Amino acid sequence: MIKTDILIIGAGPTGLFAVFEAGLLKLKCHLIDALPQPGGQCAEIYPKKPIYDIPAFPEVLAGDLVDNLMKQIEPFQPGFTLGERAETIEKQEDGSFIVTTSKGTRHHAPIVAIAGGLGSFEPRKPPITNLSDFEDKGVEYIIRNPELYRDKKVVIAGGGDSALDWSIFLTDIASQVTLVHRRNEFRGALDSVDKVQELKNQGKIKLITPGEVIDIVGEEKVEGVSIKQGADVYNLECDHFIPLFGLAPKLGPIADWGLEIEKNAIKVDNSLDYQTNIPGIYAIGDVNTYPGKLKLILCGFHEATLMCQSAYQRIFPDKRYVMKYTTVGGVTGFDGSKKEAPKAVVKAID
Amino acid sequence: MIKTDILIIGAGPTGLFAVFEAGLLKLKCHLIDALPQPGGQCAEIYPKKPIYDIPAFPEVLAGDLVDNLMKQIEPFQPGFTLGERAETIEKQEDGSFIVTTSKGTRHHAPIVAIAGGLGSFEPRKPPITNLSDFEDKGVEYIIRNPELYRDKKVVIAGGGDSALDWSIFLTDIASQVTLVHRRNEFRGALDSVDKVQELKNQGKIKLITPGEVIDIVGEEKVEGVSIKQGADVYNLECDHFIPLFGLAPKLGPIADWGLEIEKNAIKVDNSLDYQTNIPGIYAIGDVNTYPGKLKLILCGFHEATLMCQSAYQRIFPDKRYVMKYTTVGGVTGFDGSKKEAPKAVVKAID
Repeated sequence: MIKTDILIIGAGPTGLFAVFEAGLLKLKCHLIDALPQPGGQCAEIYPKKPIYDIPAFPEVLAGDLVDNLMKQIEPFQPGFTLGERAETIEKQEDGSFIVTTSKGTRHHAPIVAIAGGLGSFEPRKPPITNLSDFEDKGVEYIIRNPELYRDKKVVIAGGGDSALDWSIFLTDIASQVTLVHRRNEFRGALDSVDKVQELKNQGKIKLITPGEVIDIVGEEKVEGVSIKQGADVYNLECDHFIPLFGLAPKLGPIADWGLEIEKNAIKVDNSLDYQTNIPGIYAIGDVNTYPGKLKLILCGFHEATLMCQSAYQRIFPDKRYVMKYTTVGGVTGFDGSKKEAPKAVVKAID
Repeated sequence: MIKTDILIIGAGPTGLFAVFEAGLLKLKCHLIDALPQPGGQCAEIYPKKPIYDIPAFPEVLAGDLVDNLMKQIEPFQPGFTLGERAETIEKQEDGSFIVTTSKGTRHHAPIVAIAGGLGSFEPRKPPITNLSDFEDKGVEYIIRNPELYRDKKVVIAGGGDSALDWSIFLTDIASQVTLVHRRNEFRGALDSVDKVQELKNQGKIKLITPGEVIDIVGEEKVEGVSIKQGADVYNLECDHFIPLFGLAPKLGPIADWGLEIEKNAIKVDNSLDYQTNIPGIYAIGDVNTYPGKLKLILCGFHEATLMCQSAYQRIFPDKRYVMKYTTVGGVTGFDGSKKEAPKAVVKAID
């Protein structure tokens, strides 16, 4: 059982920044995320996209924003349960919570902060009847570890950035890369489309367009796919089939936790501390709603900060916390690190 | 008369970021600040101090934070009335406001956003009876334009960073720099204290410690100061006397604008849009108060953002604004500039 002070569901920008604000209050955090890495959408969906409305960044790539946040929270040593979806929550007699993930990992904390963004990102699956039989047996919807594909035959399906970029990336790792798409046209960064053209010309990517995977072939695991191209249907031998048709956010199991839901988001009390209708459970960032709510990263940062103050009061009802400015008090990490402004000296001049 | 959409009182980080969020909504802003440059405290009091709690900046100097914000808002061409304090506000029949500064500059806008921080920074003045007679006649409390002192004889009083740093800076400009302090010990950055020691040894700064300026000498303007050193009192010829004893924030004239004040701050409705008790006047950043308020720059950013949305609704009650993400829509400046993410292409691979 993993124990922490604030259990954060969702490791996007809002969840990550909550670790920092909690850390200033000497509260430890642990984050759960269904994606294989921290950063939420910013890392998974658009790491190379510039964002223009993060305060004091005239322009920042989403991936760099995540890297900066990871660096900022490093002194507070957060724990991570990644690639697992938070499934169930059980309230304990003492008011604390146990949250269990899709893989059975259990977490215990007095405070739960849901920073779930638009929900957990679920892959869009193509309509292949026996597809689910082969999940984790050669069918993957998200590439978690590219090394899995070393010297394997891989078939990727899709016509967007993910399909293009992973096809390019895997040519150096897999023994064979086949890209199947229903049209001849691909939609993505110009660079990526041109690179795939080049690799196809070099024979490093086998392109099947317009074509469609209509069936998985295999016994215990994927041994090939059945492809329909025009009137022809034929089998192609492979070890992995990776359909990359995008991710769609779903509120998921959190919707059944007894929280007040409105417009697919969790209602919170914005007049105070972004707490939900269940005391001890907060919702911050894009996952929450209140009058005037804006789904902006900068709003999540503010909500995370006020949430941490309230969480502190809940954990230590008798302590009076006096906020110290980091400009004055610096930042003392749980790892013993200390960052602070150079101190003024008092020194005679003679 | 200066006309604008949102008149922002206070050009600190919160006021500056409001320009950006207003700009995304195509609203123009004009800022008034009593200090001679934008940035508020960050620029005037601690530009070289690192801040650790701005989201996604593991560390940023206060001065750099201001520079970044100025760069971010550049496309929205804000106007500035600097070195003037907002003094009076008059509500017009149509619900708009006219704000007049200490120097009589008039501004007209449908929306006023007070981003006044801890108030306007007023210099702490030494107890010299005829001091006020010489204000702007050779006595300055804030150095607005160092060129004013070219080839002049300058006496600076004070024992902190400002006194040290300006003494150092002016040795290259003024014909004579004298630094007077009541003690031998100075309190400031080690570098600055050591530098003053060095300049004193080289004869470039004349140091009078422990000593005190007790009188100003002159007819129409400063011609010298009277200095008390131990039992001795003597006159020292000079063109300027600059007492640098720090700045203390005062809510100032805003306190008389009919706004609800609590704990020296302006009460706002945080459950919606940070509006004050006077419709059309908002208060954002450190100057406001509400349950759970934290005086943090990142909270000011959030408040500024929600305020702008509400201001838009107030200016255009019949328009329905649909928020566009900058990652999707980019940023279009009033100067015709356009920043946006590289567009995806749709392109065939053959």
